[in-house]
Amino acid sequence: MSKAYSYYQDQLRTLADLEGAIAGLSWDKEVIMPSKGHPYRSRQIATLAGMAHELKTDPKLVATIDELYQQRADLSEAEAANVLRSWEDQRRSLKLDKDFVMRQSQAISQGYEAWLKAREQNDFSLFEPALATLVALKREEAERIGYEEHPYDALLEEYEPGMTCAQLDPIFAGVREHLTPFAAKVRAAESPDDGFLVGSFDWQKQWDFGLQLLREMGYDFEAGRQDTSPHPFTINISPGDVRVTTVVDTQDFQTMTWSCLHEGGHALYEQGLPADDYGLPRSRAASLGIHESQSRLWENHVGRSRDYWQYYYPVLQSIFPDQLQDISLDAFYRAINKVQPGLIRTQADELHYHFHVLIRYELEKGLVEGSLNTSELKEAWNEAYERYLGVEVPDDRQGVLQDIHWAHGSIGYFPTYSLGSFYAAQFYAQAQQEIPDLQENIRKGDSSALLSWLRKKVHQHGRQYLAPELCRRITGEPLSYEPFREYVERKYGTLYGF
Amino acid sequence: MSKAYSYYQDQLRTLADLEGAIAGLSWDKEVIMPSKGHPYRSRQIATLAGMAHELKTDPKLVATIDELYQQRADLSEAEAANVLRSWEDQRRSLKLDKDFVMRQSQAISQGYEAWLKAREQNDFSLFEPALATLVALKREEAERIGYEEHPYDALLEEYEPGMTCAQLDPIFAGVREHLTPFAAKVRAAESPDDGFLVGSFDWQKQWDFGLQLLREMGYDFEAGRQDTSPHPFTINISPGDVRVTTVVDTQDFQTMTWSCLHEGGHALYEQGLPADDYGLPRSRAASLGIHESQSRLWENHVGRSRDYWQYYYPVLQSIFPDQLQDISLDAFYRAINKVQPGLIRTQADELHYHFHVLIRYELEKGLVEGSLNTSELKEAWNEAYERYLGVEVPDDRQGVLQDIHWAHGSIGYFPTYSLGSFYAAQFYAQAQQEIPDLQENIRKGDSSALLSWLRKKVHQHGRQYLAPELCRRITGEPLSYEPFREYVERKYGTLYGF
Repeated sequence: MSKAYSYYQDQLRTLADLEGAIAGLSWDKEVIMPSKGHPYRSRQIATLAGMAHELKTDPKLVATIDELYQQRADLSEAEAANVLRSWEDQRRSLKLDKDFVMRQSQAISQGYEAWLKAREQNDFSLFEPALATLVALKREEAERIGYEEHPYDALLEEYEPGMTCAQLDPIFAGVREHLTPFAAKVRAAESPDDGFLVGSFDWQKQWDFGLQLLREMGYDFEAGRQDTSPHPFTINISPGDVRVTTVVDTQDFQTMTWSCLHEGGHALYEQGLPADDYGLPRSRAASLGIHESQSRLWENHVGRSRDYWQYYYPVLQSIFPDQLQDISLDAFYRAINKVQPGLIRTQADELHYHFHVLIRYELEKGLVEGSLNTSELKEAWNEAYERYLGVEVPDDRQGVLQDIHWAHGSIGYFPTYSLGSFYAAQFYAQAQQEIPDLQENIRKGDSSALLSWLRKKVHQHGRQYLAPELCRRITGEPLSYEPFREYVERKYGTLYGF
Repeated sequence: MSKAYSYYQDQLRTLADLEGAIAGLSWDKEVIMPSKGHPYRSRQIATLAGMAHELKTDPKLVATIDELYQQRADLSEAEAANVLRSWEDQRRSLKLDKDFVMRQSQAISQGYEAWLKAREQNDFSLFEPALATLVALKREEAERIGYEEHPYDALLEEYEPGMTCAQLDPIFAGVREHLTPFAAKVRAAESPDDGFLVGSFDWQKQWDFGLQLLREMGYDFEAGRQDTSPHPFTINISPGDVRVTTVVDTQDFQTMTWSCLHEGGHALYEQGLPADDYGLPRSRAASLGIHESQSRLWENHVGRSRDYWQYYYPVLQSIFPDQLQDISLDAFYRAINKVQPGLIRTQADELHYHFHVLIRYELEKGLVEGSLNTSELKEAWNEAYERYLGVEVPDDRQGVLQDIHWAHGSIGYFPTYSLGSFYAAQFYAQAQQEIPDLQENIRKGDSSALLSWLRKKVHQHGRQYLAPELCRRITGEPLSYEPFREYVERKYGTLYGF
């Protein structure tokens, strides 16, 4: 290993120590910290974040990464991949000078305050001026970063490097052209009864069942733990400590179940990243979209399948006989896949979810390219919900103010949620081709071959490849809407007999 | 506030953020971290500790503290107190150059390894050469630091600034001359029956009782929490987050009870330090001895008193009726104050404890002044245990190898344990004079006046005064053995009728 590479590695590992410390303290804050700890915990995290920033922007490290990038032909393949990803990150951040970063961070503070107030008063007009400033800064950011075709591409790069509108447009065209009539067809069919999913479900029994699901999908409890928190999340504190949280609702066992499978999918990815490259890009997730593909694959393709519950439903019935003993597997399977349009993205089913994202994608593109003004945003939002989901938006809180992302200055983030589902469908179709007896094993409660396949195809590569390339390497094809189309047609066609 | 003082304050607060982060990550490691997190947690803590060291030794901060010290007449009283304490710490650490610190840290690593091995093989001779090196370095340290009368004074300063052999000798003379015959007299009396303290005590009921004790002594659960860990401890993660841990032994309810009172005493001190001086000496504990005085005061003077249990014993009886309904308060009170000599310091009762410390104090002084050689240590240890406690040491593991302190290079630490008891006795005697109806309120389960008194007399001053001065301010007298003598004579005299 060259001296320069060794220096680069040491610095990135020190940075990873700081980031892991921040993650540990953040977990503590969300999960168990006593209330009076808050002001000091904010200080502690800000101090560590400041030190991490200083380390990341240290001129010697910046110069070393540049030097290694120039000489990457002399590095091993893994070393060169690490350096390339670090160089790309650095090139991006060097284009945003200190003055711009400060202006943006100030606008985010003000945007967040304004959004909180606007939500409280249920009035978008209180947020609109701050959002206009944030959008203007995002347009400036796109110009500073640079792009080939569309300014939105420069913003996508922050969350999903390598992804562009040119790739996204045909995928969302699939949502618009195929999913719109398809979801309408499903809605028109007779809705299944799901009343039995709500009732009285003992806290401890649910908790134990959730732990069983996590354990049996392959989550390593020696390298993680599950706790409860107001919103479920997965956090990587270190390669040996990837924690998940869940919510247990004693009226509705579904909340805990889907969160275990969803967060479990995220956590299996983090637990499967190559720890020998601790702190370096190869030990990190490829992108937000790929991360979300792992959670959606386990939650939807595995967890909401009839095969999965062929094994687990008798287990669940034995745990909650009063609620479920008279309900057949088919009735249960139909109920957990009930779909209905709604106003809120985070509560959407696996069909309607993508309209929520499509709407945000179209609006964001319009704002960034200048064809839509923030003053027109609320009307455009409400009109789109009427058009795509057939729902009327009764107020701003349930409409344009529902998500925190824009208030945090995150534009270009939403598409990664749908990308997660589309990558998941494409990967799972490939897994079904490559893994003998995959569904049969899942019917027996054994998903170990699937995990091994994901470890080999996705997890072990970390950030070695950008997401579009990773997808081609795994499936031989660029990402497309097709596998998702086939998945939902087969599944809902079978469920509703069309 | 001057610019220099403001810089000093900012730097110390950043340092406190780092130390709080380390404390939070250490708590997590001891209490809940999954096992595979260990190697990374060690890295994270080492990285933060390195950054803290760099901050503390930053030439600009060192120069600022020097400058402020020179101009301390221009500062407010509180500012001047902070600067004085920081300057003293700095003066001490500047006397130990980098080369010495590295030699010592290497010797500690080797000493710890050797001690582990020696303990495993139950053979002091495997530790003796490493200990000889550590002692030589401690003697060198004392010369570098400087002292007026005894080289041990320079070592005491690290743990109990302001304390000297000249003050300690008469106090330990009290142990030798008064406590030796007194403890022998108690041992000769009829030993109380304490068999009923061992049995079956439900985990959850014990846990809830412990929380009640903590809550009612004034521990603020919005600024802390209790958990379990292999060894009980108190940790200050921030002024708003002071946590305690306990051990629940379902065979013996005493373990949990005394740890709640002991750690609760430590935690009340930390929760009562002045948070407005966050990060500065005035927000820190005065010394290890003063810290231990707070835990011992609550554990022994309050917790092992008949008055305390006049209120809590009926509560405890109602929780564990099977075990305690036929046992009178007096029988219970006698049982929890049973004394007997033993080999192990950490298991000693409140009388015999001080012989364990006296022995270590005498041996340490001998080693540091050169009148005792490490090759003679084991024999000296065994002879002292025979002489003071009348017990024969059967092997090194239960003898000279029992404590980790020397292996960690801590010489001068042990006396702070006994100082805790002596300060506690002197403070409590003063509290009894100053607080009307103190014992009567304790008999009613109300210790709030005691806590207010401790807040005012001890907690709110932080490190403003050195421990000896704090003691004079509180009691009007320097620390002496007398209040402890009066306390044990009254208590055990009443218990045994002499």
